[in-house]
Amino acid sequence: MLPDLTFYSHWRSLAAYRVRVALALKGIAHKVVTIDISTGEHRRESFLAINPQGVIPALGLPDGTVLSQSLAILEYLDEIRPRPPLLPQEPAARARVRSLALIHAADVHPLLVPRVRARLSQQASIDDGAWKHWAHGALLPAMQAMEALLANSPSTGRFCHGDAVTLADIGLSSQWVAMALFGCDTAAFPTASRICASLGTINAFAQAHPLRQPDAPGAARGEAQ
Amino acid sequence: MLPDLTFYSHWRSLAAYRVRVALALKGIAHKVVTIDISTGEHRRESFLAINPQGVIPALGLPDGTVLSQSLAILEYLDEIRPRPPLLPQEPAARARVRSLALIHAADVHPLLVPRVRARLSQQASIDDGAWKHWAHGALLPAMQAMEALLANSPSTGRFCHGDAVTLADIGLSSQWVAMALFGCDTAAFPTASRICASLGTINAFAQAHPLRQPDAPGAARGEAQ
Repeated sequence: MLPDLTFYSHWRSLAAYRVRVALALKGIAHKVVTIDISTGEHRRESFLAINPQGVIPALGLPDGTVLSQSLAILEYLDEIRPRPPLLPQEPAARARVRSLALIHAADVHPLLVPRVRARLSQQASIDDGAWKHWAHGALLPAMQAMEALLANSPSTGRFCHGDAVTLADIGLSSQWVAMALFGCDTAAFPTASRICASLGTINAFAQAHPLRQPDAPGAARGEAQ
Repeated sequence: MLPDLTFYSHWRSLAAYRVRVALALKGIAHKVVTIDISTGEHRRESFLAINPQGVIPALGLPDGTVLSQSLAILEYLDEIRPRPPLLPQEPAARARVRSLALIHAADVHPLLVPRVRARLSQQASIDDGAWKHWAHGALLPAMQAMEALLANSPSTGRFCHGDAVTLADIGLSSQWVAMALFGCDTAAFPTASRICASLGTINAFAQAHPLRQPDAPGAARGEAQ
């Protein structure tokens, strides 16, 4: 019997996207509470009482415990519901999978969040064009590294690590969604492109896309069609 | 019998510091190869052949596999040498520990690395004073969140989670070293301060400090006395 989980989420958040994919892959029942990061709801006292860091995603457990940080939540979900596994068995393989996920989640995504955009705007007068340039500068070098790590390893299969979906695929897919949102050219990344095409055939990934969430604006949902 | 590990490191890297602490805590034999990030050695072809992302730390295994990303390496070390454990047993406790580590490693540290400083300097004419302001803006809100999570939880003990050192302490300590390097006031963080004082009495932490590494410049080592 799994706990009754509360998923604090917002359609725009890539970190929430990663958790959404894992919840779907594992078929874990949960309720969704929308925290509108576009209006600063995550910074209000009511949400800071839930997660003092004021970020989503967060995952509330029935005993009042609140988990945060997408990768910590993904590992938690993998531990409470081990099937299908999101990590391989062997330690070096697990490290490879985790490191691929971290390249996006720890090196790229933190540079693209709204609070960084706000700080760049305030401290460095970054406008929309410069923001896109900044985002490309974060996304593309990391993508080149991920492509090299995927293309040059015999461990790469249909997905990032063999033929089963892992945390690495959730990280890659999150990176890929960000690349699309920022209009990055993907031609230089054929291995990642092939893997993401495979991932796109899996309902858990397709249905989790930010623009397909019920809290996404109608216009944005239209773009996703 | 443990593998013969090669640790690609540099005294200045906080991510290398995190791995250095774990290697020491677990008493894992390894050789150190210095990659001088101050001269761009990590971006040269010779190192890109080892780690295509061009970042340290990296951990070379005897079969030629190279692991990267500090948190992936920490989990690997914990799996190949489970004593002393760096994670508690229970899934929600493990998630708490991982999320505390990720607040620093995934939300703060990526904003402080040399490549971000270089981009800010090039794209936004950030000078030394503005860089310090930028760093404080990354460090202090996260520190406030960590302090709240530590101060308000019955799970906090002598260390971040109970009375045994975990990944969370390695993350907190890395954050604390960064706060000191950037001259942040720590008065508002009594729980973190108390824990870091305890950590400072442990050789694995004290000896791993960036300024105590043999590749640190003499002047810098003098400051650490």
